[in-house]
Amino acid sequence: MHISELDTPSVVVDLDVLERNLDRMAAYSAKAGIKLRPHIKTHKTPELALRQVALGAVGIAAAKPGEAAIMAAAGLDDIFIAYPIVAPHKAEAFLALSDTARLSISVDSLEAAECMAKASDARGYDLPILVELDVGFGRCGVQNASAAIELAQQIEKLPGAHFGGLMYYPGHMMVPIEQQNIFLPRVNAAVESAYEAITKAGLTVPVVSGGSTPMAYRSEEFSHLTEIRPGMYLLNDRNLVVGGFAALEECALSVITTVVSNAVPNRVIHDGGSKTFSSDRLLTGDHIGHGLVLQDSDAIFYGLSEEHGHLDVTKSTRTYRLGERLRILPNHVCATINMHDTLYGVRGDQVETVWTVAARGRVQ
Amino acid sequence: MHISELDTPSVVVDLDVLERNLDRMAAYSAKAGIKLRPHIKTHKTPELALRQVALGAVGIAAAKPGEAAIMAAAGLDDIFIAYPIVAPHKAEAFLALSDTARLSISVDSLEAAECMAKASDARGYDLPILVELDVGFGRCGVQNASAAIELAQQIEKLPGAHFGGLMYYPGHMMVPIEQQNIFLPRVNAAVESAYEAITKAGLTVPVVSGGSTPMAYRSEEFSHLTEIRPGMYLLNDRNLVVGGFAALEECALSVITTVVSNAVPNRVIHDGGSKTFSSDRLLTGDHIGHGLVLQDSDAIFYGLSEEHGHLDVTKSTRTYRLGERLRILPNHVCATINMHDTLYGVRGDQVETVWTVAARGRVQ
Repeated sequence: MHISELDTPSVVVDLDVLERNLDRMAAYSAKAGIKLRPHIKTHKTPELALRQVALGAVGIAAAKPGEAAIMAAAGLDDIFIAYPIVAPHKAEAFLALSDTARLSISVDSLEAAECMAKASDARGYDLPILVELDVGFGRCGVQNASAAIELAQQIEKLPGAHFGGLMYYPGHMMVPIEQQNIFLPRVNAAVESAYEAITKAGLTVPVVSGGSTPMAYRSEEFSHLTEIRPGMYLLNDRNLVVGGFAALEECALSVITTVVSNAVPNRVIHDGGSKTFSSDRLLTGDHIGHGLVLQDSDAIFYGLSEEHGHLDVTKSTRTYRLGERLRILPNHVCATINMHDTLYGVRGDQVETVWTVAARGRVQ
Repeated sequence: MHISELDTPSVVVDLDVLERNLDRMAAYSAKAGIKLRPHIKTHKTPELALRQVALGAVGIAAAKPGEAAIMAAAGLDDIFIAYPIVAPHKAEAFLALSDTARLSISVDSLEAAECMAKASDARGYDLPILVELDVGFGRCGVQNASAAIELAQQIEKLPGAHFGGLMYYPGHMMVPIEQQNIFLPRVNAAVESAYEAITKAGLTVPVVSGGSTPMAYRSEEFSHLTEIRPGMYLLNDRNLVVGGFAALEECALSVITTVVSNAVPNRVIHDGGSKTFSSDRLLTGDHIGHGLVLQDSDAIFYGLSEEHGHLDVTKSTRTYRLGERLRILPNHVCATINMHDTLYGVRGDQVETVWTVAARGRVQ
């Protein structure tokens, strides 16, 4: 099928770019000796997770048991949940996957550890439970080394579980390099402090799981890091480009929309609104705009209705005709994919693959 | 099923409140003599559209042929698309519904009118095509009376179509009443000017379709208005409450989430993030926060990760325990429903109805 036969708005993935991105991270991971465990929250698509593992990823990270179940059913056999679970039925749903997959999880409370261990013990499983450490993002995670060691020791005592290592998420590091360089020693100090305290207490720390796409290619600068969990690297987005973490030609995903109105002077309306792109703002640079029109960097994607994308074309030197198709780079690739049930893999102008975003919309 | 048996995050609709909201708008519409044509973009759920029609709505408005098809299959037999269609296959998909439903659409270009008329003519249908007028929102719509009459006359000449009236969307009026009162005479001047020009030219204007939830109960103040298309009125949301358009007790929809982490001081993390609520900002009041925690108005829902809701509980006088359930009013009900496949209708603490958001995720 030719790309022009796709309805709009449709989400397309340039397979050449995707494959280069996958290869680059796989090669970096191998060379650095740091294991790659991609977070599937970005694509929620089993076929893409399988490609990541085929290229050397040790397994995947997911946010929910429901997503993990979709991935396990597709053959993914090493699944880490990077999210604190405190509900017994969710723990049981996750542990039900232990027949076919190696499982692990991170927690930041004894309650979550007990919840997971109980479900694990009921299955006769020995679940590695990592302790989440807050390294500066201020979302989840124990606050210091003594809290980390206390929780690690508590986990060791739980039937059905053992201490699996340290986990953190440096979500505050999608910032300019000067700020990164201020944060990095603090992250390392927090990790080193917890690592040494736990080691001194006689426990081993088999895994230190960190990483995110913005910091992925600086992983060697992070202390004790054994594993990274980037999600977006295979596709990239406008946030990463504007922030300086990816080049425009490394962006594999875009949305094809159609110009539907140009009745208002200096405005062009296309059929990609917030229900196509999400309302996720640009978190880098000047924080302005809802996406980049790849044909026209002078157009400002200034507004979103639910089904209307609003372009300000005051500074544009091209004309827009009704029915014309645009290709737009979204601000946030994870949020955009989450609005859709289907992704189209394209090679040049040909649609080569159709993927279902099978793990989208899970409640559990 | 008891509400506590629902997994989280789940979207629940209080049926008592829903029914009061539905009744109130139906009664207002009947008393004002202004037809009610609810926009189904809010709920995307056929059962709710059927309830609206059972209470007297003349039909529904939708944004896409794919949504219209879901609604027509459920028995909705009068469907207006409030969106300019310029793609022949979309026009054909919509007109395919003419076997079972009365159809109409609005346009703001001759190209869109020709596209629709061609598909209509091919089916032997006579499609009412309304002319969209820009009354100040600056999104779609012809700019003045002379453009309106020119397009109306062009539509009249097209085989398969006739001029169906005027349509507008006062999307700029979700503002304080003082500003509304500045905008209202401008809206009326634009409508009156177009109406009179078209009438003077010998055409009748059978429909003037306007309205939106924020202005719905002021519909009698709008010139020539015959029909309104509110979407949110049956559920309401935080935007409407903070803007003064609905009372808190008139909000029927909320999201049940679970507290999953309280490891960071003065922070409580629950399992409703941007993939649960959407990232739609508060458009009214101080524009701050991603939702209202109904149990604790002192908590500030200040941040969203994809699966984490971040509460600042610095000013809160209550404690939050892990595993506790919260009930949260979203900023924007349409965007929240669009993230989910299922809605739960509850009466008190009992789940009485389960609805599938069947028209969600349509591309066409």
